[in-house]
Amino acid sequence: MTRKIKVGIIGAGRIGKLHAENIVNNFKNVEIKAIADVFADKIKDWANSIGIENVYSNHREILNDPEIEAVLICSSTNTHAQFTIEAANAGKHIFCEKPIDFDVNKIKEALSAVEKAGVKFQIGFNRRFDHNFKKVHDLVKEGKVGEPHIIKVTSRDPQAPPIEYVKVSGGIFLDMTIHDFDMVRYLSGSEVEEVFTHAAVLVDPAIGEAGDVDTAIISLKFKNGALGVIDNSRRAAYGYDQRVEVFGSKGSVTVSNDTDSSAVLSTEDGVISEKPKYFFLERYKDSFVAELRDFFNAIENDTETPVTGMDGLKPVLIGLAARKSYEEGRPVRVEEIEA
Amino acid sequence: MTRKIKVGIIGAGRIGKLHAENIVNNFKNVEIKAIADVFADKIKDWANSIGIENVYSNHREILNDPEIEAVLICSSTNTHAQFTIEAANAGKHIFCEKPIDFDVNKIKEALSAVEKAGVKFQIGFNRRFDHNFKKVHDLVKEGKVGEPHIIKVTSRDPQAPPIEYVKVSGGIFLDMTIHDFDMVRYLSGSEVEEVFTHAAVLVDPAIGEAGDVDTAIISLKFKNGALGVIDNSRRAAYGYDQRVEVFGSKGSVTVSNDTDSSAVLSTEDGVISEKPKYFFLERYKDSFVAELRDFFNAIENDTETPVTGMDGLKPVLIGLAARKSYEEGRPVRVEEIEA
Amino acid sequence: MTRKIKVGIIGAGRIGKLHAENIVNNFKNVEIKAIADVFADKIKDWANSIGIENVYSNHREILNDPEIEAVLICSSTNTHAQFTIEAANAGKHIFCEKPIDFDVNKIKEALSAVEKAGVKFQIGFNRRFDHNFKKVHDLVKEGKVGEPHIIKVTSRDPQAPPIEYVKVSGGIFLDMTIHDFDMVRYLSGSEVEEVFTHAAVLVDPAIGEAGDVDTAIISLKFKNGALGVIDNSRRAAYGYDQRVEVFGSKGSVTVSNDTDSSAVLSTEDGVISEKPKYFFLERYKDSFVAELRDFFNAIENDTETPVTGMDGLKPVLIGLAARKSYEEGRPVRVEEIEA
Amino acid sequence: MTRKIKVGIIGAGRIGKLHAENIVNNFKNVEIKAIADVFADKIKDWANSIGIENVYSNHREILNDPEIEAVLICSSTNTHAQFTIEAANAGKHIFCEKPIDFDVNKIKEALSAVEKAGVKFQIGFNRRFDHNFKKVHDLVKEGKVGEPHIIKVTSRDPQAPPIEYVKVSGGIFLDMTIHDFDMVRYLSGSEVEEVFTHAAVLVDPAIGEAGDVDTAIISLKFKNGALGVIDNSRRAAYGYDQRVEVFGSKGSVTVSNDTDSSAVLSTEDGVISEKPKYFFLERYKDSFVAELRDFFNAIENDTETPVTGMDGLKPVLIGLAARKSYEEGRPVRVEEIEA
Repeated sequence: MTRKIKVGIIGAGRIGKLHAENIVNNFKNVEIKAIADVFADKIKDWANSIGIENVYSNHREILNDPEIEAVLICSSTNTHAQFTIEAANAGKHIFCEKPIDFDVNKIKEALSAVEKAGVKFQIGFNRRFDHNFKKVHDLVKEGKVGEPHIIKVTSRDPQAPPIEYVKVSGGIFLDMTIHDFDMVRYLSGSEVEEVFTHAAVLVDPAIGEAGDVDTAIISLKFKNGALGVIDNSRRAAYGYDQRVEVFGSKGSVTVSNDTDSSAVLSTEDGVISEKPKYFFLERYKDSFVAELRDFFNAIENDTETPVTGMDGLKPVLIGLAARKSYEEGRPVRVEEIEA
Repeated sequence: MTRKIKVGIIGAGRIGKLHAENIVNNFKNVEIKAIADVFADKIKDWANSIGIENVYSNHREILNDPEIEAVLICSSTNTHAQFTIEAANAGKHIFCEKPIDFDVNKIKEALSAVEKAGVKFQIGFNRRFDHNFKKVHDLVKEGKVGEPHIIKVTSRDPQAPPIEYVKVSGGIFLDMTIHDFDMVRYLSGSEVEEVFTHAAVLVDPAIGEAGDVDTAIISLKFKNGALGVIDNSRRAAYGYDQRVEVFGSKGSVTVSNDTDSSAVLSTEDGVISEKPKYFFLERYKDSFVAELRDFFNAIENDTETPVTGMDGLKPVLIGLAARKSYEEGRPVRVEEIEA
Repeated sequence: MTRKIKVGIIGAGRIGKLHAENIVNNFKNVEIKAIADVFADKIKDWANSIGIENVYSNHREILNDPEIEAVLICSSTNTHAQFTIEAANAGKHIFCEKPIDFDVNKIKEALSAVEKAGVKFQIGFNRRFDHNFKKVHDLVKEGKVGEPHIIKVTSRDPQAPPIEYVKVSGGIFLDMTIHDFDMVRYLSGSEVEEVFTHAAVLVDPAIGEAGDVDTAIISLKFKNGALGVIDNSRRAAYGYDQRVEVFGSKGSVTVSNDTDSSAVLSTEDGVISEKPKYFFLERYKDSFVAELRDFFNAIENDTETPVTGMDGLKPVLIGLAARKSYEEGRPVRVEEIEA
Repeated sequence: MTRKIKVGIIGAGRIGKLHAENIVNNFKNVEIKAIADVFADKIKDWANSIGIENVYSNHREILNDPEIEAVLICSSTNTHAQFTIEAANAGKHIFCEKPIDFDVNKIKEALSAVEKAGVKFQIGFNRRFDHNFKKVHDLVKEGKVGEPHIIKVTSRDPQAPPIEYVKVSGGIFLDMTIHDFDMVRYLSGSEVEEVFTHAAVLVDPAIGEAGDVDTAIISLKFKNGALGVIDNSRRAAYGYDQRVEVFGSKGSVTVSNDTDSSAVLSTEDGVISEKPKYFFLERYKDSFVAELRDFFNAIENDTETPVTGMDGLKPVLIGLAARKSYEEGRPVRVEEIEA
């Protein structure tokens, strides 16, 4: 039997709790030794109920525990870079939720600390582990569609987040589209060279007043010559719309939305199928387990993680380029941001 | 926090192991205190690895343990009735794999022991807990298709079982179609009154030599006046085909096969989607957890189980009628079998 | 340029008019020289408007015209056999609407006259010429599904006919299912050996009072060993439901309903597609032209017609067997009817 | 009975012949009195075979015939504007194939002549009359998707045209995308304000050498605030790909490709459906008849044509803006082109 990997979780909000429960239910060889959250009191009962004994209010207690090999950073975005640096310095392997930061320099500092420490680092782009998108990726990689020519991503939320969240979200391109920027990199096997953004406030004027947009078309040019386009909306009346297409010299591959069942009801009113699964927790349920499986495997077998630090940096650069393009009304090269 | 339900598992073949692992991974309030199997030695390591301490070769050690509240009977079919009687007499709640027996009298004896003991009893018709079929059931129950007129079930396996298995299987109607007989009862909300069977050996002559058939159309008449039809094959080249339709006065509801992904590949060769999920373990994965959830809930809340002893008896009666119809070349009323 | 084929049409009801207009719009090498209808006065204006000059009340004027090579018999069913005999005796090629008659002996007399006269004879089983069913037929014939094991036909009307029509229709098996009996012969490439019928009155009690049924499951056994099943309803709330499946040793082929568009509307209420095309005139529009094309080609090139006299006789035999099975509650061999 | 509309056709290439045959087969109240083509000799036999008596090499013979009320201009693009002016001056109603010209001033001159003459003028944007796109348009107009937010068009050809054609085609944006520019105007009910083009040569280097591109993403901003995107390829390996989506405040509507049948073949190799209908002649067959029906109705009832001169001008302006955007690497406002 394999050794136990002892981990600590930093941040016990929605995503921290989700990871904790996924670990308890799915990984016999992983033990959550401790969890830290600024509101330690509030999570104690929940933590105990799933068998986590140590609940701290200060994440440093986790970093100081020599038995803990790896940490999951699930705290608020503005702490990701700092905690990554601290954890790397403490020699812990790191699974960090996206994005690392909105500031490129802070990301680079964090990645530099990781590199120096030689610890494993994985960023939480869970959609790469989704059964549909992984299948598209695999078919493209096997050459089934030939050379990619056009990559398309449709990504629409079932409803806009609260305005208070919008204000601190980093804007739609870093909060929502960032997943799509990761997706086009994953599917195309190439880097984005240039973006052009058309965007508007069509869902809710309050989003505009908060300085953000809620509807966008982002046109992309890849280093390998392929073109791409992402369309986003903060609110699709019919629910969470998550589709992609890769079109190439030999054909195309598309995926459609997942639903709770394949039931089709035919009546006088029409032929009615189910709406998409509600939102990302339902839609990407299995992917959250799958990404951790790969992270723990990388630790156990001392192999590379499937989503690296560079994969954490690039989508932020593209997101910043997308915003700049919108603000300046012109195409923006990603290297302009890096410079 | 709720009390722990302590259970024992009798029989550690494929399905016994599946249930054991599902309990360990999904039910924090359930503890598998012991498992019994005639080949106790062979399963010890596996049992320990998932945290089951007591491994017996004799199921009576489970029945004699006063701490064990409930048993799962997962041994070979010919022991189901006997073990049910013993477990009932020992005052244990019972989850029993289908079928209870091929012999109606033995089933009735077992059900009678259960009734006398007043224990919970649930039969393992897991497909009722499948997301697709449950949705059809719910829509029918909500009246969305009106009064049911025609119930259709397509049920085809990806490949025929080994001939050695065919010989002891009880025949296609009790081994394979039995699930479909349960399904039409579940979906129609009515009892089957009469069956007529057309059957043939088209997949493999060896199945015929073993005294069985491999392809069948079973036409049904329900007590509420509705009609139905089941079509079976022991081998569909494209995989496990599991579809149903309920057609009624206000419309119809259908479900299609589940696939590993929604990827559609379009090339010069055509527009290609995925084949159905491979077989019942993959296709009905979640339903095996869901049926146990309801069983444990029934114990915890002292409510009725969702699949009762009568639900275990009826499909056997229909199966025997289907076989008689095939053998005698005439429609057979189910009450002929009961008499 | 090819010579003109001059034809006469007997009977100018809905189907007679349809054929007339289809000929005018699609076949430059065919001229409708005359049309006969007992209500000649009522159709004169319509006939003239599409360029038919001669409108008779007596069909014999058509049969006596030596310039007319071929006739289309579109009058009421009870006249088909008699008019076929007269037309054959007059040396005319014959396109006859289905069914030839409800009486087997009358059909045989008619076919005998046709054979003796050596004229072309085609029966109006138009669904064989439908793009979907023809594709299924072709794929089966090419061996794509291997040896056929199970043939399934779903055939449901959008609404029941008027009770006055039901009374003279010959019953559901000869009026409605007759098309499905032709379809299973067409798709299976084999003859029906035995049928068993479960039927009921579920749509409208008045249909039962008229001595007919409105819902049926007809189980079939073919000479080549394959099995089959047809399900019928006189009323599907969502419209005209016309689907088939051929399942065989190498796979299956299915077709779904045609719709007016592929539009899918996704809203808060669900994901809604279009209902099937309304009824047979809309659904099988092109097939009515295609069947005539083959008829005229057979005349022009002196080749066999694609739907022969035997194809007209067999479905009537199967229909009579289906009715007998329902009435006597037992499987009936088709040869019992022929005897 | 209605009067006959006498028409002349100018240009008897593929599209001229198509219109001629559609008129002969579908419009009893329309007579093609004459057809003109520079290669009059070559088309005489064909013209006679469908009943057109007068075949001229000079289109002026048509314009000088006082009996002819309307002309269809189907000659090469470079003659459209000139022939429109001449026909308008001769008082003929005009159905003109797209585009009117590649030069905005010439188009304006032609439209000015039409306006002055007060004749009917319709441009051949046939896709508006397609069953799928018309349904999308109607659902949008009925408010089913609410306010449009995102309009998407996928338009890919099954194969690139010959290089000789590419050279005189006006470039992809005026030759191919022009239909899509018309489509987004038709579906959005709004005007395009700004375009940004990403384009590349990925299908065939020879297209690049001819000064054109073969793959493009065109991002759009509409006057009503909505956004849009068109993706084009000169070659989709799986065939002619023609899809649209309109996404709005209340939901979305999409259409998929038409196929020759709905047959789905399931085998060991996968679940295979048909590829799209081959190319525009097959895919849009019925729309070519429907656009003429509306044209002739507009003449008969003296009503407005459904696709006006402005509808002919606007897509050319957008196409020129799209090209300019590509050439200059910046978003271009359509009013820049008009200025």
